Amino acid sequence: MLTLYYAPKTCARASHIALAESGLPYRTQRLNFAEGEQRQPAYLAINPKGRVPALVTERGTLTETPAILAYIAQSAPQARLAPLDDAFAYAQMQAVNAYLCSTVHVAHAHRFRAARWADDKSAHESMQRKVASNMRECFELIESTMLGSPWVLGEQYSVADAYLYTLAGWLEGDGVDLAGLPATRAHRDRMEQRPAVQKALAEEAAGA
Amino acid sequence: MLTLYYAPKTCARASHIALAESGLPYRTQRLNFAEGEQRQPAYLAINPKGRVPALVTERGTLTETPAILAYIAQSAPQARLAPLDDAFAYAQMQAVNAYLCSTVHVAHAHRFRAARWADDKSAHESMQRKVASNMRECFELIESTMLGSPWVLGEQYSVADAYLYTLAGWLEGDGVDLAGLPATRAHRDRMEQRPAVQKALAEEAAGA
Repeated sequence: MLTLYYAPKTCARASHIALAESGLPYRTQRLNFAEGEQRQPAYLAINPKGRVPALVTERGTLTETPAILAYIAQSAPQARLAPLDDAFAYAQMQAVNAYLCSTVHVAHAHRFRAARWADDKSAHESMQRKVASNMRECFELIESTMLGSPWVLGEQYSVADAYLYTLAGWLEGDGVDLAGLPATRAHRDRMEQRPAVQKALAEEAAGA
Repeated sequence: MLTLYYAPKTCARASHIALAESGLPYRTQRLNFAEGEQRQPAYLAINPKGRVPALVTERGTLTETPAILAYIAQSAPQARLAPLDDAFAYAQMQAVNAYLCSTVHVAHAHRFRAARWADDKSAHESMQRKVASNMRECFELIESTMLGSPWVLGEQYSVADAYLYTLAGWLEGDGVDLAGLPATRAHRDRMEQRPAVQKALAEEAAGA
């Protein structure tokens, strides 16, 4: 049994969707970020980074969304969540996931987590002012160079779709109008028709 | 033939080392960052992100260090640059690589690339002041939770070693004293005894 530690509306949603798609048995464990549960000793013993997601397996705990997503895909080859038999296509998927974690997530994080990178309030405010334009630029690049149709990799659905969908869910809150990102919007609509996505979102809403 | 686009002292060094370790035929193409060559149309046609590394293959171009490293490891299984037959160990390696690209590289980037995340100079200076402590914290976490001995994964050398070594090379410039990071220091020494590392560094120094 796999256990996913998550908090609602975070990047952990991508791993949650991948688990729902995989057919693997899993359970979820919600952390209360408002109460700082991710910084409590009980959770730090599971994930010393104090972040989500963390996936507890029989072999140990995995962190970092791209690694968890790839692990789920490899562990459930019958679900076809990654091009496991094509090193180049697989690397293209991993490149999208790496861009999402290192550039897109980071661009977003300057809104609520600016204190990671500066100590004074005026700098935080300055960073927050740039979040919308940075996120828009990221998704414009995604639409022009990374987002196939109907899925990120084209015909093959993959865990990169779950990840892209999850981070795209932050756009409106970050001040980006989706009217200018039609492919991202269409991708969201397609994702929300998938039973696994509906299942993960329902479990998240129920705090399961 | 693989072609690696790189600039000296950047994260592209990790991919360069992995190529040298792999035994695969490759050539390198140096970009002149001082002249902004990475932002010229000729390079943007290769990598629209305007960054390094980019690895041009017969199938197309790959970007993002974790994806390139995994591709090299998969393309040269005889070089044993990743635990390709163990999904959990492979995910652990990918988790290290994801942490390096999304947290460590980003912490460092606030020194020279603060303009990505804020428009005013005082905010840039504020971010720069926090780089040393952030990088030190990252490597303290790496030493306590991610860095095995003699290699990241323990007995098995992997592309994660090339990546960790490359980003650790930025520590002194970022104001971090390696005296407080003995495992990182010892890892560097071991890396620099590897012929492939020496080869990549020599090629980089020669501008090959």
